[in-house]
Amino acid sequence: MSDQFQTRHIGTDGDAQRSMLSALGYDSVEALVSAAVPDTIRTAPGRVSALPAPISERAALRELRALAARNTVNRSLIGLGYYGTITPAVIKRNVLENPGWYTAYTPYQPEISQGRLEALINFQTMVSDLTGLDTANASMLDEGTAVVEGMLLARRASKAAAGSTFVVDADTFPQTLALLRNRAEAVGIELVVLDLASTPADAAELQEAFGLFVQYPGASGRVWDPSAVIATAKAAGAVVVAAADLLALTQLTSPGELGADVAVGTSQRFGVPMGFGGPHAGYMAVRKGLERQLPGRLVGVSQDAIGKPAYRLTLQTREQHIRREKATSNICTAQVLLAVMAAMYAVYHGPSGLRAIGRHVHLSTVAVADALRAAGVELRSRSYFDTLLAEVDDAATVVARAHERGLLLHAVDAGLVSLSLDEETAADLRDGVFPLGDLIEVLGGTVDGEPELVFGSEPSFEASLARTSDFLTHPVFSTHHSETAMMRYLRQLQDRDYALDRGMIPLGSCTMKLNAATEMEAVTWPEFAALHPFAPAADVAGSLELIDQLEGWLADVTGYDTVSLQPNAGSQGELAGLLAIRGYHRSRGDLQRTVCLIPQSAHGTNAASAVLAGMSVVVVATDELGNVDLDDLRAKIAANADTLAALMITYPSTHGVYEHEVVAITSAVHEAGGQVYVDGANLNALLGYARFGDFGGDVSHLNLHKTFCIPHGGGGPGVGPVAAKAHLAPFLPGHPLAQDATHVLVANGSGHSDGPVGRIKHGGGPVSAAPYGSPSILPISWAYVRMMGAQGLADATGAAVLAANYVAAKLREHFPVLYAGDNGLVAHECILDVRPLTEATGVTVDDVAKRLIDYGFHAPTMSFPVAGTLMVEPTESEDLAELDRFVTAMIAIKAEADAVAAGDWPADDNPLRNAPHTAESVATSTWDHAYTREQAVYPVPTLVRNKYWPPVRRIDQAYGDRNLFCACPPPEAFA
Amino acid sequence: MSDQFQTRHIGTDGDAQRSMLSALGYDSVEALVSAAVPDTIRTAPGRVSALPAPISERAALRELRALAARNTVNRSLIGLGYYGTITPAVIKRNVLENPGWYTAYTPYQPEISQGRLEALINFQTMVSDLTGLDTANASMLDEGTAVVEGMLLARRASKAAAGSTFVVDADTFPQTLALLRNRAEAVGIELVVLDLASTPADAAELQEAFGLFVQYPGASGRVWDPSAVIATAKAAGAVVVAAADLLALTQLTSPGELGADVAVGTSQRFGVPMGFGGPHAGYMAVRKGLERQLPGRLVGVSQDAIGKPAYRLTLQTREQHIRREKATSNICTAQVLLAVMAAMYAVYHGPSGLRAIGRHVHLSTVAVADALRAAGVELRSRSYFDTLLAEVDDAATVVARAHERGLLLHAVDAGLVSLSLDEETAADLRDGVFPLGDLIEVLGGTVDGEPELVFGSEPSFEASLARTSDFLTHPVFSTHHSETAMMRYLRQLQDRDYALDRGMIPLGSCTMKLNAATEMEAVTWPEFAALHPFAPAADVAGSLELIDQLEGWLADVTGYDTVSLQPNAGSQGELAGLLAIRGYHRSRGDLQRTVCLIPQSAHGTNAASAVLAGMSVVVVATDELGNVDLDDLRAKIAANADTLAALMITYPSTHGVYEHEVVAITSAVHEAGGQVYVDGANLNALLGYARFGDFGGDVSHLNLHKTFCIPHGGGGPGVGPVAAKAHLAPFLPGHPLAQDATHVLVANGSGHSDGPVGRIKHGGGPVSAAPYGSPSILPISWAYVRMMGAQGLADATGAAVLAANYVAAKLREHFPVLYAGDNGLVAHECILDVRPLTEATGVTVDDVAKRLIDYGFHAPTMSFPVAGTLMVEPTESEDLAELDRFVTAMIAIKAEADAVAAGDWPADDNPLRNAPHTAESVATSTWDHAYTREQAVYPVPTLVRNKYWPPVRRIDQAYGDRNLFCACPPPEAFA
Repeated sequence: MSDQFQTRHIGTDGDAQRSMLSALGYDSVEALVSAAVPDTIRTAPGRVSALPAPISERAALRELRALAARNTVNRSLIGLGYYGTITPAVIKRNVLENPGWYTAYTPYQPEISQGRLEALINFQTMVSDLTGLDTANASMLDEGTAVVEGMLLARRASKAAAGSTFVVDADTFPQTLALLRNRAEAVGIELVVLDLASTPADAAELQEAFGLFVQYPGASGRVWDPSAVIATAKAAGAVVVAAADLLALTQLTSPGELGADVAVGTSQRFGVPMGFGGPHAGYMAVRKGLERQLPGRLVGVSQDAIGKPAYRLTLQTREQHIRREKATSNICTAQVLLAVMAAMYAVYHGPSGLRAIGRHVHLSTVAVADALRAAGVELRSRSYFDTLLAEVDDAATVVARAHERGLLLHAVDAGLVSLSLDEETAADLRDGVFPLGDLIEVLGGTVDGEPELVFGSEPSFEASLARTSDFLTHPVFSTHHSETAMMRYLRQLQDRDYALDRGMIPLGSCTMKLNAATEMEAVTWPEFAALHPFAPAADVAGSLELIDQLEGWLADVTGYDTVSLQPNAGSQGELAGLLAIRGYHRSRGDLQRTVCLIPQSAHGTNAASAVLAGMSVVVVATDELGNVDLDDLRAKIAANADTLAALMITYPSTHGVYEHEVVAITSAVHEAGGQVYVDGANLNALLGYARFGDFGGDVSHLNLHKTFCIPHGGGGPGVGPVAAKAHLAPFLPGHPLAQDATHVLVANGSGHSDGPVGRIKHGGGPVSAAPYGSPSILPISWAYVRMMGAQGLADATGAAVLAANYVAAKLREHFPVLYAGDNGLVAHECILDVRPLTEATGVTVDDVAKRLIDYGFHAPTMSFPVAGTLMVEPTESEDLAELDRFVTAMIAIKAEADAVAAGDWPADDNPLRNAPHTAESVATSTWDHAYTREQAVYPVPTLVRNKYWPPVRRIDQAYGDRNLFCACPPPEAFA
Repeated sequence: MSDQFQTRHIGTDGDAQRSMLSALGYDSVEALVSAAVPDTIRTAPGRVSALPAPISERAALRELRALAARNTVNRSLIGLGYYGTITPAVIKRNVLENPGWYTAYTPYQPEISQGRLEALINFQTMVSDLTGLDTANASMLDEGTAVVEGMLLARRASKAAAGSTFVVDADTFPQTLALLRNRAEAVGIELVVLDLASTPADAAELQEAFGLFVQYPGASGRVWDPSAVIATAKAAGAVVVAAADLLALTQLTSPGELGADVAVGTSQRFGVPMGFGGPHAGYMAVRKGLERQLPGRLVGVSQDAIGKPAYRLTLQTREQHIRREKATSNICTAQVLLAVMAAMYAVYHGPSGLRAIGRHVHLSTVAVADALRAAGVELRSRSYFDTLLAEVDDAATVVARAHERGLLLHAVDAGLVSLSLDEETAADLRDGVFPLGDLIEVLGGTVDGEPELVFGSEPSFEASLARTSDFLTHPVFSTHHSETAMMRYLRQLQDRDYALDRGMIPLGSCTMKLNAATEMEAVTWPEFAALHPFAPAADVAGSLELIDQLEGWLADVTGYDTVSLQPNAGSQGELAGLLAIRGYHRSRGDLQRTVCLIPQSAHGTNAASAVLAGMSVVVVATDELGNVDLDDLRAKIAANADTLAALMITYPSTHGVYEHEVVAITSAVHEAGGQVYVDGANLNALLGYARFGDFGGDVSHLNLHKTFCIPHGGGGPGVGPVAAKAHLAPFLPGHPLAQDATHVLVANGSGHSDGPVGRIKHGGGPVSAAPYGSPSILPISWAYVRMMGAQGLADATGAAVLAANYVAAKLREHFPVLYAGDNGLVAHECILDVRPLTEATGVTVDDVAKRLIDYGFHAPTMSFPVAGTLMVEPTESEDLAELDRFVTAMIAIKAEADAVAAGDWPADDNPLRNAPHTAESVATSTWDHAYTREQAVYPVPTLVRNKYWPPVRRIDQAYGDRNLFCACPPPEAFA
């Protein structure tokens, strides 16, 4: 039937697959996969998946609507870092719902990413301006983990004389405190929690700390002046981190002006729905001198080959994938799509609009406070921005009564509730549709008739804390205020970029497959989008059910017993898994088991995560075929016999090969008392054919943004669930504010799943700010699995493996395929070795990658895992026509390189070295090149009718690092 | 506050307006408009609008959700031309919800419209293939009006020997019959209704008709072979029209193969939601020889200046705007956005997918029929596609009982109900979620336990009627079946086009203003989108309320007493208004009042509509200032004293001028017993400042797709409400299946509105197939008025008039501004005279228009109302930067023309004559032109960073007309 989703998801149909198979000499996909995947790991043919039978897109939407109907969107006054916000419709439609934005990849190829890089520069400028600090990065995963990163930054950047403790304000969001405790313990940091507002400025604790953390305004809503305690700590050599509310900063003196070195927080309330906790863009900004300490990605301005300004990711040598075990952070992805939305919210409202919104929220809070006091409610708040503390007899009863009226309050303790206003509630107060009478009543106040709300003009906080400095003075924040102008700005930026809606993005290890429109549909439904992460369980029954189902399905397909969806990035999933291993060993008294074996070829993030989980890394060699060197592994195990904590291994390997000996490897580790961590980055090559849990994995993280169709969003969001055997469950991430601490338990110990058999508690500390990480995008993966079913997932794997082997076979005679497994087959990706070409012709892997832009392609993964190579992962979603278009392009590029070698073109003036070519570059009267304009931009004739024009020439990477500039350049720069 | 919608809708803010006013020498917008608009028509300053105060986007969405909540989406089995259909999510997201598609204009400038023209060629090919006829047009307004157009075509194309009657099958949809009756009467056609299936093939009626109409399958669902009656009628010289169901045609012999000359119908069930009646794309296809008789728009293949294939609208000389009173149809707009969706549905499913859907619908119907018969239900149907007739005791009771179970049936007569299956119900039957037991029960059947549904493989109809011919054999219908491929195809086509999301479309008379995302939001909500037009009133209470409110608001702002939203295009609004005038005169016994005065400068559609309303056209001269020549008017009135029916006038005039004497004009007509029809095309220049009803209008049509923000969709949908004084209400369009025949009555007789005061019946015949025309897009205009309020609408008018006068003032010294009114001011548009330039330099208006593409603009309206001119309407939504960008471009183009005149460039080789320039044209090694590549494509430096590249060079119009080809060209054509 044409409404089988898998025929839409998988790009190659039966005819195409037959023709590809015949090129490879196999007569079925099953035969091909059987030849590639070692027998030892193949799932028993008889295994019955517990996944439900696949359903159509229409039926999946019906089920999602039924789940959505089980959620109730009550009016949240909970606050604590999550606020109602009005997403401008022009941004929702043209960014969040537009594949030109959401299917883009991380901007590692800056020439085809100028649109989102400009949006991110806007984000950085916005954060830097509002926080009063010099340099902001391109977003963090959430506020809680940003605070953790701030703590780690403080430790490494503080003066040698500084102390060894990290002082944390007691008036901090509870989830942030829980995160700090969990993460500090693993890396040996001692936390000291103090009520800073009542701490003397000369307190000894402040002078013995390497860092100080202030929540601004406080969790209680309190607005006070922390500059004296900040000054003390800094004088003693500490680095001061403030978590600041961006909307409050439109009214309040910025953290930078108060002396903070680092500001962190979330940009959620700048137009990004709460989404039951995420995803949103966290942020971090630092004062001058700390730029090189920033974790995560940083966008900077550089110049292209002809000296025009161009954006790129800068200072990449700071990043975890390069620094490996020397990394100071394991943060890998960012939250680009959400950062773009927040930045565009600021662009659309501009400084005066933001100021007006912030002021209205604040004055509404003052008006509500006046009305509550007038009604006899006892408020503890005197100086605040948007949050009030009310004294009540029994907070739990008040919260429950409020819930009955559709109002969500937060019980601070037995006698205290807090309530926070926001853009939505303030608008509704003005429009008279906020149930103020109900609020007064549930708080125990009394009012005759309709309560009166009087909007004054006096802020509640001291004039000395009122913001006087300018922000968002760059013209970009003042030129797109009409919807027409905004729509066009978004279109212009989108048009500069290359995303999946233009063509293939064959990035090895990144699995850039289809993000289907039906999968995306529920993301923007208010029933999923408008939930507060700490809403009562009754309000989120549908989301909890969806999470349970998805966790059960993921456990079933990977052979694990339980899954946590909390980690909101792959790196956080790794960390959660390693922390679980750590917790497991410690629970058995094996405190000394802290060594983590990691193969040479591993992704750098593995090592970084291990360090942050308190482990030390020992590298295991790989052999010339790219496989783990079994002898070296045995030697390393022997050398660390008592201290072995874990082996981290990626399967199929980062070389894109099904290692034959994986069972021997995992057995060796187990025999030595270690745990096996299988990195799930390459799961797309296994699903339906083999399961990590069956061949020795104890724990894995998965990447829902790879295998399970969550779009990359231009560099985030990601979701990195951690999946584990039951013995690790007590150490998987929990959360103090979780609606339910238990998770689905699947009986996988036998290697034969019958689906969920019960529930199991995850008792570890949190790794994300929200209990379920980024739940608003989980309907995407849910829908994917629901519509594919077990056989569909296996068919997708088969199609992906077929596509990779087809490309490898077609290109092998032009570029050596570097690694292969059984029967000379690759898994779902193949490494094309460009080094022989470079040696023979001088044409580098960079030249090939940039030249692919001229041919209308995003380059494959460059120089990972092997320098000088390209790793190609076509995925199952590309059709044969697109695969052939890629093959044609690569062969043509090879011929161009040969022409260079033959001397037809000089080594320093040929279409490869000068790639990519802009339209401007060929529309010139003078043309001094050894090749023609046609050869430059239309090397194959199909390009004439369908051409992507890069907006800049090749970008000078070194220039950007040497001339660090990470904010919006002045308009004159482009003149 | 930044959440005031009008600050988003209006492009120029206070600062910009002040600077523009100072350039014009006025100190306020009010002063400017006062100087431009004659005092005699200005609305009294004291008038209080009945419009509610404006609300924010958030509040408007809240109100819309409340209205939506009052609708109930029950499962429709009503059929009658409206069916449940599954819109592929990839099409919904990337076409219907993407401004790149929905904000585009009609493809009159083909060079910047190649994407939607290709989509329309796909539509034409699909219709032509499925109907088995040679040439299909680019869509009709709906099935009912397409049948009317078929009747008119038959009359003019039938052989001279043919008779004078039009024979209509009794088994025709009731709304189609009502439309035929209404329209036939006005043009003097006699209808003969026969039950064709039981009519002898040699019946005399068949031999005395100029045309024959067959519904295929019939309204009853009956599938029979009409070829014998068709043959008889054709032998007697008649033209045979068949209304055919496109999905049924995947299973049934096509109308072309059965002998029909013309096929009409709707493409709604190809993925376009029912939307309570519309909009959808109707279609018409004809056999060879009748191409030039086709009404509406027709896309053909031509070639561009370098001989490459290129699409364009072909045979435009057929169209009403050129033929005026000689036109045979007044159809002006098409339903492009919906035709694109239907075509893409066919592209996505391909021939085998469509065949499978049609087969599944049919076999589901057979299975349901078997189940019903087994349960004892008496079915009359033997041979059918998707519709069954069940005999029942009391149809009304059965329909009511079904409604209680959430099932909508159609009562054919007292003892007969019909039920139709469709893609949705068939999918739900397969998935087991269709309440088959309920259906059996309400039809009086009995079943023990769960009813069984057995899907067989035998069709119900005779093998001789089974389709054997191929369709959709062009590769485009077989290459985009994966979602990835489909998404990219849509992006590629979109990227070839220029829409409002790229820049200004300053089309005089077309009012290309912002279509805000919030306005668009509710269009795709199922509560509005999934309603059947004949659903019971209780199910559509929210939509009826929205319609009532909008009708009341439109009456209030125009000074009329009542409004009908039924006309689904401006031309249909005109026709409805003129039919009302006709009805009015006839009701008073004034049968002879059939003369319609129309000024020389009027849009051609005016005259065409008058003819189709049974009137004869008398042209009134205009003076050298573009105003109606009062002397000539008086003379023409005198000459037609007894026969004067009406004057049609556009205000402000089609010259974009506020005629000073309009009150004198309307008074003269009234004194002579005529009615005044004011064409509302230019209402954007009046709203809030003057009202048609106050200065003498008796009736007007409005264009919701101009003044009230419905997007143009690339050439439709449109909505053309007719607004009238109370005395015309009895003659405004009614509908036999309307949920409510009464409409809001506003007390405007006094010229002072107090808002709705009651309800009034519209008693005329229908002009659209659905009772409320195209209701699913009415939330757009509703939201616009709701968010702007009375003052916001006036401010928009002021900003539009300011923008037009600013452009006129800035360009006056370069291009003469052809007409002006009081104080030398124009209204909301200005005519730039290019004729002096042409005379001096040889550069034509065409050259200027095409050269504007190189500058990144859509050309203004060309040669209307005056040949050799450009009419510029910037609208209120453009900001000052964009207005200045346009002014800069026009001045630069003038300088280029001067360079031609000065001999710097030859007359036949300069950037103007060769415009537009593709990227390909400048990326060539050889360049033989007298100007440089840079001059060709980057004449101003801002283009380097933001360039729209047209996909083709200037298109050869004559070639396309000479070499008519209206289907997908073979792929080799592009090689």
